[in-house]
Amino acid sequence: MKVMVAGGAGFIGSHLIDALLAQGDDVVCVDNFFIGTRENIAHLHGNPHFKFYEQDLTDLDRMLKIFQAEQVEYVFHLAANSDIQASAQNPMIEYKNTYSTTFILLECMRLCGVKKLFFASTSAVYGEQMGVEVSEDAVALKPISYYGGAKLGSEGIISSFAYMNDMSVLVFRFPNVIGPRLTHGVIFDFVKRLKADPTHLRILGDGTQSKPYIYVMDLVDAIMRFKDVEKGITLYNVGVETQTSVTRIAEIVCEKMGLPEIPFEYTGGRGGWKGDVPVFAYNLDKIHAAGWRASMTSDEAVAKTVEMVL
Amino acid sequence: MKVMVAGGAGFIGSHLIDALLAQGDDVVCVDNFFIGTRENIAHLHGNPHFKFYEQDLTDLDRMLKIFQAEQVEYVFHLAANSDIQASAQNPMIEYKNTYSTTFILLECMRLCGVKKLFFASTSAVYGEQMGVEVSEDAVALKPISYYGGAKLGSEGIISSFAYMNDMSVLVFRFPNVIGPRLTHGVIFDFVKRLKADPTHLRILGDGTQSKPYIYVMDLVDAIMRFKDVEKGITLYNVGVETQTSVTRIAEIVCEKMGLPEIPFEYTGGRGGWKGDVPVFAYNLDKIHAAGWRASMTSDEAVAKTVEMVL
Repeated sequence: MKVMVAGGAGFIGSHLIDALLAQGDDVVCVDNFFIGTRENIAHLHGNPHFKFYEQDLTDLDRMLKIFQAEQVEYVFHLAANSDIQASAQNPMIEYKNTYSTTFILLECMRLCGVKKLFFASTSAVYGEQMGVEVSEDAVALKPISYYGGAKLGSEGIISSFAYMNDMSVLVFRFPNVIGPRLTHGVIFDFVKRLKADPTHLRILGDGTQSKPYIYVMDLVDAIMRFKDVEKGITLYNVGVETQTSVTRIAEIVCEKMGLPEIPFEYTGGRGGWKGDVPVFAYNLDKIHAAGWRASMTSDEAVAKTVEMVL
Repeated sequence: MKVMVAGGAGFIGSHLIDALLAQGDDVVCVDNFFIGTRENIAHLHGNPHFKFYEQDLTDLDRMLKIFQAEQVEYVFHLAANSDIQASAQNPMIEYKNTYSTTFILLECMRLCGVKKLFFASTSAVYGEQMGVEVSEDAVALKPISYYGGAKLGSEGIISSFAYMNDMSVLVFRFPNVIGPRLTHGVIFDFVKRLKADPTHLRILGDGTQSKPYIYVMDLVDAIMRFKDVEKGITLYNVGVETQTSVTRIAEIVCEKMGLPEIPFEYTGGRGGWKGDVPVFAYNLDKIHAAGWRASMTSDEAVAKTVEMVL
């Protein structure tokens, strides 16, 4: 099948392309290198089943030309801002890169009759649901980050397009994804700080902020496994049952760097920054019942990622 | 207080301006006349408490200049596409006029420190919840029209901006609004068809599609009554308990036009058009408990509106 991966030069998108090519699909990758990198897809140049367009997804006219030229059957939409701290300072990043990319892709699909979509959503749509293990049919969604707000908006407009155009859509809401080709986040920050000054480690918040970290290969495995869905929206929380606290991440980084005894200095407070959801637990019953589980725990995913970052 | 009414030359916005001025507020109205009309605000010219900008709300730079010049304390956001049938043919209308207007207004509010917002949302965010009387904390929201999808997206990004910037936001989800200055919809269609040919009336669907119609003055009354809210999001369904079927509207129109015996010709099918939610019931317990009820039933609102349209 000929498919499009939007945001295919990004962290998750580039791994998904590897999996799609390995399965025999022809892949059209569209990316503007806002967050994606040339390095992530360098190994694919010369592959006759891979085609790349350096293109901003929000340009409807140019995107329509690509859709008309390529006649893809499936769109994997992984294009978005993924740096929540950056957009906290400038929400327009989410307007353009997270919401508008979705709307323009949907409009191209509508005009060109493309019926199959995968959408990478996020745990951030739930917002701060204190003490609740959120399931897919959760109560009112109240995102607190611009990123979560723009992703929830994307889910909303996907619902409309799916209904109006008889599309088959798989939506995954997933938490922090880590692994090879990762470009930012707390693991990077800790390694960078310790390389600059190995005498101590500054930690945002009180260190108890805990999140599930899923290994990117586990996520790609789930996409490949569930991508063929019925008409309408099929929605799953995808994650790991375990969580890793920020202090635990610091310990793993220090251990792997051979710095077991250095002091941690906490800036204090519940969250790392405003818009950060300090504690988050997923209800994964639905995808577990469908026969899928992550192969790595959150701590294992962190440890493996730290090894690659060093 | 100095306030901004975005979409103030529109049907609901212009009535809200009348109420705000009557209460002693200074009103800055911004509208691009996409759906709003000069006639709706003609009676306000020369009023020293009223100022008008003909301006597209999606132009961030120009909107910022207006915010900086006017220093408003409250934004009433009623700018949106309101013609769901039009955007069913061209969803980009919702991208620009419903979603993007919201994002740009929020960004102006953030940059200029404006903390109070009213947002006109819609029953369409619920989508088709068969047999369920939907309350504010309803299960998964699944809009089926592009309009509903863009409004749900607006609610999502409002949630983020409210949290990140300590805003106080009142969100009303309301159904069909009718009354003076209405410009389109089923009542207009019936009157127009009967004036052109009074021998019969063509009705989309099977005529059983039933919706609550709220009189615009009732809605404005509720906005004025609840506009001062606490920090965060305060969300109400606002409507009437009764509903009016399409056949009942046809009967009321024919009665008022003195055409009691003409045959109705149904096109058949459940909904009037794709994206139309054929039967919809609101749970209004929350706003009733807060001490507000509509003064007119749905049928009364229809009858009064028909008289004005004729």
